[in-house]
Formats: sequence, structure tokens, C-alpha cells
Amino acid sequence: MSNPKIIHTAVVGASGLVGEKFLQTLERRNFPVGDLVLYSTWRSAGRKMSFRDKEYTVVELNDHSLRNFDLALFSAGSAVARQWAGKFVQQGALVVDNSSAFRKEEDIPLIVPEVNGDAVKKHRGIIANPNCSTIGLVMALYPLHQIFRLKSIIVASFQSVSGAGRRARNELREQLSGGSAEPEIFPRQIGGNVIPQIGDFLSGGETFEEEKFRSESRKIMGLADLEVAATAVRVPVEVGHSLSVHAEFALTPHLDSAIERLEQSPGLILLKNPQDFPTPRQIAGRDEVFIGRLRRTPGFPNGLDLWLCCDNLLKGAALNAVQIAELALLG
Amino acid sequence: MSNPKIIHTAVVGASGLVGEKFLQTLERRNFPVGDLVLYSTWRSAGRKMSFRDKEYTVVELNDHSLRNFDLALFSAGSAVARQWAGKFVQQGALVVDNSSAFRKEEDIPLIVPEVNGDAVKKHRGIIANPNCSTIGLVMALYPLHQIFRLKSIIVASFQSVSGAGRRARNELREQLSGGSAEPEIFPRQIGGNVIPQIGDFLSGGETFEEEKFRSESRKIMGLADLEVAATAVRVPVEVGHSLSVHAEFALTPHLDSAIERLEQSPGLILLKNPQDFPTPRQIAGRDEVFIGRLRRTPGFPNGLDLWLCCDNLLKGAALNAVQIAELALLG
Repeated sequence: MSNPKIIHTAVVGASGLVGEKFLQTLERRNFPVGDLVLYSTWRSAGRKMSFRDKEYTVVELNDHSLRNFDLALFSAGSAVARQWAGKFVQQGALVVDNSSAFRKEEDIPLIVPEVNGDAVKKHRGIIANPNCSTIGLVMALYPLHQIFRLKSIIVASFQSVSGAGRRARNELREQLSGGSAEPEIFPRQIGGNVIPQIGDFLSGGETFEEEKFRSESRKIMGLADLEVAATAVRVPVEVGHSLSVHAEFALTPHLDSAIERLEQSPGLILLKNPQDFPTPRQIAGRDEVFIGRLRRTPGFPNGLDLWLCCDNLLKGAALNAVQIAELALLG
Repeated sequence: MSNPKIIHTAVVGASGLVGEKFLQTLERRNFPVGDLVLYSTWRSAGRKMSFRDKEYTVVELNDHSLRNFDLALFSAGSAVARQWAGKFVQQGALVVDNSSAFRKEEDIPLIVPEVNGDAVKKHRGIIANPNCSTIGLVMALYPLHQIFRLKSIIVASFQSVSGAGRRARNELREQLSGGSAEPEIFPRQIGGNVIPQIGDFLSGGETFEEEKFRSESRKIMGLADLEVAATAVRVPVEVGHSLSVHAEFALTPHLDSAIERLEQSPGLILLKNPQDFPTPRQIAGRDEVFIGRLRRTPGFPNGLDLWLCCDNLLKGAALNAVQIAELALLG
């Protein structure tokens, strides 16, 4: 890179919900942004966005507008990532991509800095940012794995509409305000409803979103034999994903040790009193993963149950990606 | 009773959401209602309700208004049930109570007719109607238990606000319409949120609602050793409870056998295609328990995962209670 403390930065997908959070997060964390170019498709080109009191005009990403950068933060979907990430790498950039395009590729690290930050050393130009729900899950379970050895996870998710983007959020708003109830983004009406489908169905009956819990958790935590049964559900919440988690360990998980470990873990806030559980409305806008309702359930001697909430646009997306960039570029 | 085909009937808690459904269900199923008296507290006394094109005035339940009946359908909470059920029994009535007051008492049957209808023979005046969420759970799992032997259940619930009554439903409506967001019935704002607390907390960190899944499932299915880990969550849905269920069996559950058994089971509708999953909005007002997303998950050789939805006011409450009365009184 041109200067270790000045990072020329591209944001690809700048006009989306995560794109906005990239800018806010870079600013808030005093990331040493040098030149900044905001890319989008032609549809959002021309839009104005501000960063550090300066106004930027979003430009269309094409072969003419491509330049060289130190860092390119991508949140523009898998197709754009597949088409463009390599070109930014060729121009010298580190690409941190928020889509699922590269997550399963063996030679591309998939990173949650608090869990497997060391993997940043192995990158060859692209680092994948995990799925929003998986990030919360491994943030909570990896510290427990270190003392009790994680064997299996049964998880049900309560995922907010912002995880599906701006149009999805607007669809919920319109339905709740009595406007068109016709579903366009979601497979059913989401207002006043819950929808047990996120992503397409695989042949065995799981959705892609559910399969991500398994494959991404295994890769991030380095646990090839971890078993995961997930049900991913969309709920009529704007921001903030929640998970109901039942985890089984090789060792009997003593509650006091679990509490102590979670309290020491960076990026986590453990709410110890049962009635202090987190909810998505309360944690939206916060950086940490919030854990509550930690308990042992009678009849499951090696199990722990917990509830967690995480801002899917921040730690679930933009914040985690910026943390990756900090690790990789600012060391 | 005075005449096997004329059932003099009291509805206690008539003005509540379940009370309304009692009347609609009795009418819809041509239940042979003779005299009908609608009871409530003094607050709702005087209200008019209609049954079979006739108008009835709700009367306050007190020692003066108590009369003899063949059947008393209670949905007025545990305190009212404890105070009044015995008095109706003394006056000759069969009491079917929708509260949790009597569910754990050994000599009081707890019945889902499709599962343990025979238990109706053992009643001594009172029969308990199970919790709304438990009913859906055992409806789905008992047929599978009969062929694969159920060992344990991990369940997360997505429970609608109508399960907490009319004021709870109005609290959601007010929050969504931009009125007061101040929570009164629920521990947090429910509009645009999900709340992982239903009922008070027990000492181990479970809620009462979560414990009901265990104790009631065991009693209804006659499985004293069944292990259940539940997380009960309120979602901003008006009517219809949903459950994400992971069940483990003693025998390997072959999917084709599971499908065949569920399709033969009364009161169930199995939606076989993954994309045909039920949602609460779609099944509200329906009598059946709807099962979708039935699948085997890699890594859990003896497990099955499924999603189900059930109208909590009908099969989860009023319909199940009326079915119990039909079994007990009409044979």
C-alpha cells in the first residue's frame, strides 16, 4: 500500500444499508481513509453521501471508473463480488467482501477477528466477511468452545428485514403503515407475520441461510466435525438479528465458568440477570453481541441454552468488515 | 347431565379473546348447547354477545349468579379457575379449564383429544386444557413418537400477542400505529421487536412458559423421561403461534414413514413441499395444526426438524376445549 497509515479506500455498494454503515463505521473508528470512492450500480450513481463532513458523489462501477486502492469494502451481492473483486485485487487492493461469493473457497479466509483473526495473515487479496447471523453465533460460542469443546448446535434465528436490504425494509414499513401488502422481496407478507424461509431451498430441505450456519461456523472456528441444525426465520423487525441457541459440549459446561469466560471476551456483553435479556430494538446501533438468558436446562447435562442479539448491519456486516481491514492493513 | 343431547353450558371469561372463540366454536360445530350463560368479571358484565342469532348479556360471576350446568368452559386465568371451578363441579358441571391452574395435578386429566383422548374417562369434574404452544407440539410429535420413540425436543417458539389476551393485542396495535410505545402488558416494546420472555422466570433461568413445554408434553404423551429444552419468544404477530422444532428419537426416523404417518393423523395438515411452509397469517382462523419444512438434518441421524403453525385461540385454546367437552359429554 502507498502508506501504512493512509488507506485509499473504495466502497462497493455504497448506497445500500451496509454501505452506509461502512462509512459511519470508518468515520467512527478513525480509520485512516485517504482517497475515498463510493461505487454503486448505475441506478444509484449520482447520489450524494457524506463522510467526515465532506460530500461524495456515488459513481457507477465500470471498467472506466475502476482505480487502484489499498482497500475495497464490498457489500453488493455475490454477482458483483465475483465480477469485480479480482479486478480490485489486481489493482492492489485488499478486498473485504460481505457477500457469500467467496466464503467457502478454501484459500480465502473467512474471519471474525475475535475468533480467528490470525487467518488474516493467509489472505491473497480477498477476505470474506461471514453471514450476519453466523457472526453472532460464533462470537458467543467460540469462547465457550475453548473451555468445554463444542460438539453441536441447534439454533433458531429471528432475523430482521434489514438483512435483506433497503427494499425489504421498505416492504415491511409499507405493510405496517397500511400500504400495499403484496410481497415482492419476501415470499410472504412479513408485516404481522414470521417467515421460515431465508434464501433458496437446497435439495435436503434446508435453506442456503441454514446451511451457512453450519459451513461458516465450521470454517471460522476450525471445527470440521461440528454439527449444526438451524432454522432461519424472518421476523417483522427492522434492525437486529436474534438467535435462540442450544449448544452441546464434550465437557459438562459449568455455568460459573461459562459466565466468567463470556464476561472476559471482547465484543460481547453478557446480561446475567434473566430479566435483563437483550431484544433487537434495544441493541440496534450497538457494536457488541449481546447475550442473555444463559442457562442450563434439566435433562441436557452437557448443554447450554442462550439467547443473543446482534446488530446485523454493524457487527453482522460493516463493523466486522472494517475490523478485518484494521487487522490486515493496520496490524 | 339433564339430557345427553342438550348441554346446559356456562362460559367463564366470555368476553375475552378465547371466550369469543368458545362461542364461535360451539356454534360452528353444532354443539348441543341448551341454556347458555356468559360469565365475566364485573368489568365486562353487561356486554352483549351473540350466539346462534340470539343476543346474550354477559353477567358477573358471583355466588348469586352461579347456577347448575352440564358444562362450564373456563378461560379466565388461574385465579378465577382456582376459586370457581370446584363450585361449578359441585353444581354438576364438567369444567374444562384453559388456565394453567390444574394442569399439573395428578388426578386431573390434561388432554389433547387426538393424542390422549382416553384420559377423558378418568376425570372427576375438571379437565385441563393444555398450553396453546404445547398443543401444537404434541399434535405434531405424538404421531412420530408412535413409530420412532421420542427422546428429546429442542424448541423455539414464535408466539403471537393474542396469547396474552385482548389488552396485549391492543398494545401491539397501538405501537404499530404510532401510538404509545410504552409497554404495559409486555416487558418490552413488542412492536418491531421480539421478546424472549413469556411468563415469569423460574430459579434455573427458564420461564414458566418454557417449563410448560416439558411438563405438559410429558403428561399428555405419557413420556415421563422426555427431555425438553424450550425458548419461548413473543413476536409481533396478532394470531397464530409458530414453533421451530428439533426432535430426537430412539429409532432413526425415515422421512417417508414420517410423512405417511403425519398425513394420516387427524387434525394435522402436512405441507410437503419446502416452499409451501405455513405462516401464522395464513393459518389464523384454521382448526388444524400446519406442519412444514419437515426434514432430516445432516449430522443428526436420529433427528427430525420441522416448523409448525397453529391458531392459538382455536386448536391452541377454544377448539381443543370444545373437543374435550364433546369427548366427555357426547361420547
